[in-house]
Amino acid sequence: MINKFLTIFLIFSIVIIKVLSQSSNEQPLNVVPYPQEVTMIGCNIPLSVGSISIKSNIESTILSISISRYQSLFFPFVSNNVLKDSSSNIELSLIIASDDETLELGIDESYFLLVNQDTYQIKANTIYGAMRGLETFKQMVVYDVVENSYSLTCAEVVDYPTYQWRGLLVDNARHFLPKNMVLHIIDSMGYNKFNTMHWHLIDTVAFPVESKTYPKLTEALLGPGAIITHDDILEVVAYAKTYGIRVIPEFDVPGHSASWGVGYPELLSNCPGYPQSSIPLDCSNPYTYSFLENFFSEIAPLFQDSYFHTGGDELVIDCWANDTSIQKWMKTNNYNTSDAFQYFEDQLDVILKSINRTKIAWNDVLQHGVKFDKETTLVQTWTNINDLRDVLAAGYKTITSFFFYLDRQSPTGNHYHYEWQDTWEDFYASDPRLNITSNAENILGGEATMFGEQVSTVNWDARVWPRAIGISERLWSATEINNITLALPRIGQFSCDMSRRGISSGPLFPDFCSLPDDLSFSFKPVYQLSKDEIKLILKKK
Amino acid sequence: MINKFLTIFLIFSIVIIKVLSQSSNEQPLNVVPYPQEVTMIGCNIPLSVGSISIKSNIESTILSISISRYQSLFFPFVSNNVLKDSSSNIELSLIIASDDETLELGIDESYFLLVNQDTYQIKANTIYGAMRGLETFKQMVVYDVVENSYSLTCAEVVDYPTYQWRGLLVDNARHFLPKNMVLHIIDSMGYNKFNTMHWHLIDTVAFPVESKTYPKLTEALLGPGAIITHDDILEVVAYAKTYGIRVIPEFDVPGHSASWGVGYPELLSNCPGYPQSSIPLDCSNPYTYSFLENFFSEIAPLFQDSYFHTGGDELVIDCWANDTSIQKWMKTNNYNTSDAFQYFEDQLDVILKSINRTKIAWNDVLQHGVKFDKETTLVQTWTNINDLRDVLAAGYKTITSFFFYLDRQSPTGNHYHYEWQDTWEDFYASDPRLNITSNAENILGGEATMFGEQVSTVNWDARVWPRAIGISERLWSATEINNITLALPRIGQFSCDMSRRGISSGPLFPDFCSLPDDLSFSFKPVYQLSKDEIKLILKKK
Repeated sequence: MINKFLTIFLIFSIVIIKVLSQSSNEQPLNVVPYPQEVTMIGCNIPLSVGSISIKSNIESTILSISISRYQSLFFPFVSNNVLKDSSSNIELSLIIASDDETLELGIDESYFLLVNQDTYQIKANTIYGAMRGLETFKQMVVYDVVENSYSLTCAEVVDYPTYQWRGLLVDNARHFLPKNMVLHIIDSMGYNKFNTMHWHLIDTVAFPVESKTYPKLTEALLGPGAIITHDDILEVVAYAKTYGIRVIPEFDVPGHSASWGVGYPELLSNCPGYPQSSIPLDCSNPYTYSFLENFFSEIAPLFQDSYFHTGGDELVIDCWANDTSIQKWMKTNNYNTSDAFQYFEDQLDVILKSINRTKIAWNDVLQHGVKFDKETTLVQTWTNINDLRDVLAAGYKTITSFFFYLDRQSPTGNHYHYEWQDTWEDFYASDPRLNITSNAENILGGEATMFGEQVSTVNWDARVWPRAIGISERLWSATEINNITLALPRIGQFSCDMSRRGISSGPLFPDFCSLPDDLSFSFKPVYQLSKDEIKLILKKK
Repeated sequence: MINKFLTIFLIFSIVIIKVLSQSSNEQPLNVVPYPQEVTMIGCNIPLSVGSISIKSNIESTILSISISRYQSLFFPFVSNNVLKDSSSNIELSLIIASDDETLELGIDESYFLLVNQDTYQIKANTIYGAMRGLETFKQMVVYDVVENSYSLTCAEVVDYPTYQWRGLLVDNARHFLPKNMVLHIIDSMGYNKFNTMHWHLIDTVAFPVESKTYPKLTEALLGPGAIITHDDILEVVAYAKTYGIRVIPEFDVPGHSASWGVGYPELLSNCPGYPQSSIPLDCSNPYTYSFLENFFSEIAPLFQDSYFHTGGDELVIDCWANDTSIQKWMKTNNYNTSDAFQYFEDQLDVILKSINRTKIAWNDVLQHGVKFDKETTLVQTWTNINDLRDVLAAGYKTITSFFFYLDRQSPTGNHYHYEWQDTWEDFYASDPRLNITSNAENILGGEATMFGEQVSTVNWDARVWPRAIGISERLWSATEINNITLALPRIGQFSCDMSRRGISSGPLFPDFCSLPDDLSFSFKPVYQLSKDEIKLILKKK
């Protein structure tokens, strides 16, 4: 049996030959993203189903949920497995220096993992580091499809992320993603050690977020029930925290804001002849700012993170110059449109300061001549590498996303791949600090962006995965881990692992991924939080 | 309620503005593929859940299965629906001229459909025409998400396909698709009025087809259980017939044949230095032909169709010139490699004649100088339009697939779309007879090809749909139905309809598709055939 599969593997290994001539960089452990330091220990420990228990030296609701979840994931083929008397019972020890559950940018995610014949241990400074170790440990539990058996790979791992900001933009506006789908997405992010969900909640086409202060905002829904409630937000933030994932909302202003005007038309500029989709908020009207202050004051406390994304991209600024009332206001203040935009952003800063939040804005705001406070604003660069260099030269901290557009046919320019899914290779090659010679340390990380014009619950997973695995590894692993040939089979195997966990992550080359006979994909979280758990998780920042 | 959604629809209709300047061609009926002749009748008949019954004037097992299936599909939101006393009970009459169940190329698929206040009728010459009418009727049952109600659109439809060959290539070799997944794919084809499944069963990497004559062929499996049995084939052929879909197997020889050699190495050429994946069958060995004759004689009767695809593409013909034994044989017969290939194909013709099958071969065989019998060979053109013109000029009948490569990043050359899924527009614009001036009538139709390097059960639907909807419409509808702006909302709505039927077909623009709360996608057929039904369906051709 083994021989014949070996023959097959030999045959189709030829398919992978195309990039064989790259530099060697050994990657003996089948873990994604690849850890910083790996020492193989030459043993494999046979396991029977359910033979792993996990104990921790600290008490933490958040950590215990993470542990429960992994215990449900280790053995996807429970019913088929042949229990073997010779297999071991494993007790994995988590030794964590602090029980502080604070989750914020720059939290220590490092861990040390040791598995050998008689030691099964993860050491970490924080519960979030321990979770990263748990994911690595999960991937070291290997299912052998031919033998229908499990084993645990021995290794010593020292690991930490290269980038502290590893995000995925989830667009809840172009198509409505129900709460359970968002939780399902968070599962897939956690498996990939992403640590930031950029929740693009509203856009021109819809405002799917409940407001008690301004209930008419949700007149701009795509359809009945297509609304994220306050309770939904709390559950999403709590669930993400059980993966060490920060949730950062984006309320994109003053452009991309037509949906605000469905219920509150007085918020919008009035520039006849411009398409409705391009009409921005009215920067001259004090009502705009009191409205934003009231709304942000209502919504921001639902999110625990100190960052708050106010967008700023693709403003059709000429609309302001064609609104007679705004024209008059600009003339009175001796403003040109750039000054008007500066005024708008300054007012936002006042509001954000009052609610104790740090602004994130898209980089094209800067291209309109606006200046931000460098200490309190993070710039997200989405346009191109030259603009990134400008942002850095101006002294801003930044995160990049222009490399990582999951919606584009050719994500990085005109690079052509025969097979569409091979665009993962472009993501993989796109280290955010690549070709950056000054202030590179101000690049905090990157974000994969899944803008939602052509994705809904129905096809989200298959669009994002396995391509975004390449991004997760690029942002976590060492820069030197960049050999596509070596990464390909490892990523292929992890993609199979993800599909066994319920994520529709397809293959990258001809291979065999055994899946349960009654396979189906649903769109809900692996672990269902109770109301009490949500409260406990959120009681501290 | 309606007003606010109207506002939203007005806003995002701007998104679709980009191609607004094309010629008008009214398409008032929301049906895909668009029928040949539509007359709208200004009424909508309210329906309650379960209020449609169907009766037929003829007895047919195949038809009654089709009817049962549609009856399970009309009302996807059964539990939510508010029954209305004012709604009607509808009895749809099928009036079919013949109870002959013969399915073959060129069968009459036309139908006439009339729905008005007191007539609900489909007339057809064959049960297969009636099925096409049933699919149209199904799409005329409209769910209103705001009102949570159903209605039936009134219209008169005269319809028939533009092309008689409307195929989808399903690759069972690069990744194994289990029988239930193949049946699921057939469901999705039927909804799109495709009528031919080209089942690419084997390739270099695997031979996943049971043989009782040569049991060692299945030593070339991708993994345990990754095998299509004879019973599986019979069920697939029977199930496809309940949609009027012909199933044509492809056994690709003499190239792409390395997998044959895993169990039977003596079948392969011996050309050292060539990669294993490129080694063809040995054309000089009489064993090759007796093997093929025995194997094809075993396998062909499981398929009812008179066509049988023997591949012939991408032969690495120089391998033959570098095999000392083949060299010697060629010298003895005064053959060059082209003559050797001609000899191989001639032997295939003898075998196919003995089992009463018509050959299909990929067009690159012709480019090696091989000549086929024009009466008994259908050429599948997959390379480019110039080669298509050559095939036609040489007098062959052909089907085309080079327009319709679902695996390619840029399906038609270097045509760039920002959003990858917009490649559907290229498919949509690719009428097989476009820019063909002579012998165009010899193009029988086309095939969408989903080669499987990067698709498995996990992501098949999301890769193929909704893009292949564009192909289904291109092959069925009138050539004049080619306006992307007009087709887009209709195709978007049909894609939503497909996802409600369990196919992961995503969106093409920002919209709202309500789906059941407990949405999940499984990979099995909508209707499970019993063993008796399979026998009944297959008892006649």
